[in-house]
Amino acid sequence: MQLEAFYHVSRDKWAYAYDPETIHLRVQTKRDDVDQVLVWTGDKYDWDGTFEELAMEKAAHDDWFDYWEIEVHPKFKRLSYLFKLISGDETVYANDKGLQCSPPYPPGDNYEIAYLHEIDVLKVPEWAKKAVFYQIMPERFANGDPSNDPESIADWGEQPQIDNFYGGDLQGVLNHLDYLSELGINAIYFTPLFTSPSYHKYDIVDYKQVDPHFGDTKLLKEVVQACHQRGIRVILDAVFNHCSEQFPPFQDVLTRGEQSPYKDWFYIREFPLETRDGIPTYETFGFYANMPKFNTSNPEVKKYLLDVADYWIREVELDGWRLDVADEIDHHFWRDFRKVVKSANPEAYIVGEVWSDSLTWLQGDQFDSVMNYPFSDKVLEFFNGGMDGYSFANSMGSLLMRYPQQTNEVIFNMLCSHDTPRLLTRLGLDKRKLKLSVVFLFTYIGTPCIFYGDEIGLSGEGDPDCRKPMQWDTSCQDRELFDFYKLMIGLRKKYDALRKGRFRFLQAEPDNPCLIYERVDSRTHFTVWMNNTPEYQVLSHPMETSDWRDALTGEPVKPNNGMMNIGLDPFGYRILYRKIKG
Amino acid sequence: MQLEAFYHVSRDKWAYAYDPETIHLRVQTKRDDVDQVLVWTGDKYDWDGTFEELAMEKAAHDDWFDYWEIEVHPKFKRLSYLFKLISGDETVYANDKGLQCSPPYPPGDNYEIAYLHEIDVLKVPEWAKKAVFYQIMPERFANGDPSNDPESIADWGEQPQIDNFYGGDLQGVLNHLDYLSELGINAIYFTPLFTSPSYHKYDIVDYKQVDPHFGDTKLLKEVVQACHQRGIRVILDAVFNHCSEQFPPFQDVLTRGEQSPYKDWFYIREFPLETRDGIPTYETFGFYANMPKFNTSNPEVKKYLLDVADYWIREVELDGWRLDVADEIDHHFWRDFRKVVKSANPEAYIVGEVWSDSLTWLQGDQFDSVMNYPFSDKVLEFFNGGMDGYSFANSMGSLLMRYPQQTNEVIFNMLCSHDTPRLLTRLGLDKRKLKLSVVFLFTYIGTPCIFYGDEIGLSGEGDPDCRKPMQWDTSCQDRELFDFYKLMIGLRKKYDALRKGRFRFLQAEPDNPCLIYERVDSRTHFTVWMNNTPEYQVLSHPMETSDWRDALTGEPVKPNNGMMNIGLDPFGYRILYRKIKG
Repeated sequence: MQLEAFYHVSRDKWAYAYDPETIHLRVQTKRDDVDQVLVWTGDKYDWDGTFEELAMEKAAHDDWFDYWEIEVHPKFKRLSYLFKLISGDETVYANDKGLQCSPPYPPGDNYEIAYLHEIDVLKVPEWAKKAVFYQIMPERFANGDPSNDPESIADWGEQPQIDNFYGGDLQGVLNHLDYLSELGINAIYFTPLFTSPSYHKYDIVDYKQVDPHFGDTKLLKEVVQACHQRGIRVILDAVFNHCSEQFPPFQDVLTRGEQSPYKDWFYIREFPLETRDGIPTYETFGFYANMPKFNTSNPEVKKYLLDVADYWIREVELDGWRLDVADEIDHHFWRDFRKVVKSANPEAYIVGEVWSDSLTWLQGDQFDSVMNYPFSDKVLEFFNGGMDGYSFANSMGSLLMRYPQQTNEVIFNMLCSHDTPRLLTRLGLDKRKLKLSVVFLFTYIGTPCIFYGDEIGLSGEGDPDCRKPMQWDTSCQDRELFDFYKLMIGLRKKYDALRKGRFRFLQAEPDNPCLIYERVDSRTHFTVWMNNTPEYQVLSHPMETSDWRDALTGEPVKPNNGMMNIGLDPFGYRILYRKIKG
Repeated sequence: MQLEAFYHVSRDKWAYAYDPETIHLRVQTKRDDVDQVLVWTGDKYDWDGTFEELAMEKAAHDDWFDYWEIEVHPKFKRLSYLFKLISGDETVYANDKGLQCSPPYPPGDNYEIAYLHEIDVLKVPEWAKKAVFYQIMPERFANGDPSNDPESIADWGEQPQIDNFYGGDLQGVLNHLDYLSELGINAIYFTPLFTSPSYHKYDIVDYKQVDPHFGDTKLLKEVVQACHQRGIRVILDAVFNHCSEQFPPFQDVLTRGEQSPYKDWFYIREFPLETRDGIPTYETFGFYANMPKFNTSNPEVKKYLLDVADYWIREVELDGWRLDVADEIDHHFWRDFRKVVKSANPEAYIVGEVWSDSLTWLQGDQFDSVMNYPFSDKVLEFFNGGMDGYSFANSMGSLLMRYPQQTNEVIFNMLCSHDTPRLLTRLGLDKRKLKLSVVFLFTYIGTPCIFYGDEIGLSGEGDPDCRKPMQWDTSCQDRELFDFYKLMIGLRKKYDALRKGRFRFLQAEPDNPCLIYERVDSRTHFTVWMNNTPEYQVLSHPMETSDWRDALTGEPVKPNNGMMNIGLDPFGYRILYRKIKG
C-alpha cells in the first residue's frame, strides 16, 4: 500500500454528522491501491458491548485517490472508530495516533466523534433539494414600468456597455411570471435590488429600500407573494462586503474624516480618504475606491447588516440569501448571520459566493451552500472537448468529495452567471453541446440554476456582453431550446432519483469523451448516455433488465442479449429510465 | 515525486493567520522526497504588481512526511497563492484545482486566504506562553482548616480509596503558597472547587458555591489575590458536560418527571428516569447515572453555565478555565463561552480536555489550548525505552504539525494528571528517567504543568492511587528532586529561547535512544544532550562556536576541534547555552 496516500481526520468533510442520528466517515487511499477498507466502530465507554466491524464503499475517485465512505448510526451519539485497510496480504490499521501494522488496542487511541450534537449538524432546507433556480438581473430582465426608468436608458435591443441602463424592473418580473411558470423553474435568485447608483446594484446606498428604478418594497412583496403562489421561492443578493461610496455613513467619513462617528465602520488605513497610485487609503472591494469595504467586526456594522438580513426575510417573506464576495467577510459575522436568518426563517437557504474550496463555511455554522464555479468550469471544459470521460469523472469525484453530503445535495450548480461568459458562448455557440451540458446539470447532484435567457438561446461574452437584456420577442427566441429546458426541468422535478439518487459513472474512459452514468434510488433507475463527439457513436453497456424506456418520449428501449446499445448522433444524448419493482 | 503524499488545504492548520499581519502556510510531502517547495504569492486583484516567489522551510517531519512551512505578510490582507514542488528534474505545481505539471495561470485557480480578519485570528494570552503550571486537587493537597472537614476523613497518610476524603481545602493551599513560590511555578490549575458530594467534585451540585469542605467564595478570592500578589495565575476546572444527580434542576426532573420545567435541561431518552441493564434512560457522562449530561444547546442551560463562567472570572479575578470533557459539549456552546470569558477577561486562558486530535476547537472561535495527552504518552514511551530517537523525533514532529503555532506555544503539556498514573510510576520509579522527561518538558515548546507532588517524588498507579495526599513531611520529601524542579522552572522562566525559540533535533537516530536538540532565538542558543540509555555514553555534535556553558552550573564547556563531546552517565543529561552576540 502507498501509506502516504491515506488521509482521514476526525472532522470537517472526513467525519461529520449528516443528521442527528447519522455520521458519515470518509477515507482517502491511493487510487486502485487498496482492496478493502473496514471500519471498527463502538462507544468508547462500552467498546466491547457496542463493537461493530463495517465495510466501507468506494464512493468516488479522482486522478489520485479512491474515496471510501460509510454511514454509521452510533447508539449513544458517541462514535469511537478506527480503520483497517487491506491490500493483498498487507493489513494496516489507522487511528488517531497514525498508521499501525498490528491491531491497536481500542478504544484508547481511536478516532472520535465525541458526541453528536444536533445543534452542530449542518441542516440545509429541504426545498432547496428540489429547487430549480432561475437567476435574474432585474435591470436586464424586463421593463414592466417605464415610469420608473432611469433618466437615460438604452434601447432594449442595444449592445450593453459597462454601465448603461435599460429600465428593467420588478414589474417586469411580475409581468413574466407566467413565462417562468411555463418554463417550470421553482426558485428565483435576484441579483441586488436595493438602491444603488449602478445598474447592477452591487454598490448599495440604501440597504432598506428597493431601488426606485426597480420599484418599492410593496412591489417586491407583491412579486414574492405572486411567486409563492406559484410555488416559486425567492432569494436575494446580500452585498455585505462593501457598499457604495455614496452610502451615507461613508459619505460622513469622507466629509468629517476622523471626527466621523462612522470611521470604524470601514477600514481606514490613513486619513484623508483618497487614492494614491491607484490604491485607496481605505480598504475596498478589489482596489475600487467607489466600493469601500465594511468593517464587519465592528458591532455597529454587524448589527446594521444583520438587521438588513432579518428585515427583508420578515418584510417580504424571503426564502434565503445569496452572499456576495462571501469569502472576504469574517467568520464571526457569518455565524451570527446564520443565526439571525435561520431564526427569521428556519427554511432559509444561504448560498455563499466563494470561487475556491469553501469547506470552511460549510461546517454547520455558516452557509448551506456555495456557488459551484469549479463545477461549471469542469463541465464546460468537458463538453468543449477539453478532456476525456476518465478525467471528467475524476473531476466530478474530486468536487463531490470537497463537501459534506448535505451541501452536495443543495450546492448551487450553475453553468454560467453574470460574472462569466454565457453558456452558449462558452460552448462555441454549439447548441448540441449546450444541451449536453444542460442534461448533465439536470441529472447531476446539486441544485441547478439557469441564468436568465440561456433557455431561449442568449449568447454573450464576459461582462458586459453576458448581461444583455432578455429577449422577449418570441420570434427571436429559440423556442426549441426553451422546450428542451422545460422538458429537462420537468424531468428533474418529477423524479426523486434525479435529485437524491446515488450517482455513478458507468462509462468514463481514457481517450473517450463519451459518457454513461446512472442515478438510482429505491423507486427509479436512470441511465444517461452521452455522445460528446462530432461523430455518430454507438454506446454499449450491459443491462440486467429489459424494462427501460426513453425518459423524454416514453418509448421502450430494449437491450440485446443483456447489452444495451444506444446509437447517438454527434453530441447526442439519451436518458433512459425504469421503475424499480418491489 | 510521490504526488499522492502532497497535502494542503487553504484552512485550519495548513493556512492560518498567526496574527493580524501574518499568515502561516504549511505543506506536506512524502518524507525525503522533495528537494524544494516554493510558494508563489500575491494579491488576487493585482497579481502582477504584488507577486513574490518564496522558499518554504522544512519545519518538521514524522514517520511519513516532511512538513514545509512559511510565514507570509500580505500587503492588503488578501493572500492568493500556489506551490511549486521540485524534486530533481521534476517540477509540479499545486493550486486549488489540484496538481499540475505546467505552471498554471494565476491567480484564477489559486489557493486563497480571501481576507485576513483580525477577529478570526486565534489569539492566545501572552502570559500563558510564560506560565509554568501546577495542578492541585484541593482535597488532596493540604488540610489548612480542620473545622470544615467532611464528617469522616482518612488519615493524611492513608492509601486513597475510590471515594474517601482527607480534608484538604483552600486554606491548605493558602498556607503553602510559600512552598509554591519557592518551587517557582507561576500558575495553578485547580481541579473542581464547587459544591459536590464527591471528593473530586467532578459532579457538581452548586456551581456558584465553593464547596463548604474547601471554604467559601471569600476564601477563594483571598487565595487568588494572594496568588496574584506572588505573580501566580489561577485557572479553575469547568465541569459543564454533566452535573451531579443531586443538582437541583435534575432532582426536579427526577421528582416531577415530564412536568418538570427542567426536563429539557437534560437529554431524557425516556421517562421515568431509571437505569435499565446498566444504561440510564437519560444521557450521562459515560454510563454513570449519577452524572446526568447537560443539554447545552438549550438556551436556558447555556445561559446558566455561561453565567457561571462569567461569574467566577469577575468575582475572583480568575485567569482562565480548564474545560472538563470538553469534546462532548457542542461547538455552539464553546463559541459563546469564548465570547463570554474573553469579554470578562481578555487575557483568560481556555484549555480544553480533549485526548484526541483537537484542531476543531483551535481555530480561533473556541479554545486557546488543550491538555496534551498525546505528548505525555510519547514522552513517557520514549524515556521508558520504548522507542529510538528517530521515532521520538517523528512523534514530536507529528504532534507539532497538528495545531497552529499559537496553540503550540501554549499547549498544556503535562506528563501526568489526576487521570493517569503518576510520572515516577509511569517511568518504573526510575528518578533518572523522570528527570530526563522533566528536562524535556521544560525545554520543549508549550506550557508545562506539574501534577502536585511529582516534584517531591510522589508515586502512584492510576486513580485512586495517583490522587494520594501531598507529602508535607520534608523528611519524606525528595528534596533533591524538588531542587531539580526548581532549577528547571527557573531556567524555563529566565530564557525566552526556551519558551519561544526555534526547536530542532540535532541528533535523533534510528536504533539510538540518545538525543541532542536545540532551542534558539535571537539572544540565546541552547543545546540539550540526553543519554536515554542505562550505559555511559559520549554524545558528539559539531559546534561552530566555543562559547558554551553549562546552563545549570555556569561552567564553560569547550568543543574539541569544532566537535562537542559530552560524556553522560546512564540516563544523564546536560543543558548547554551560549549568548548570541550582536
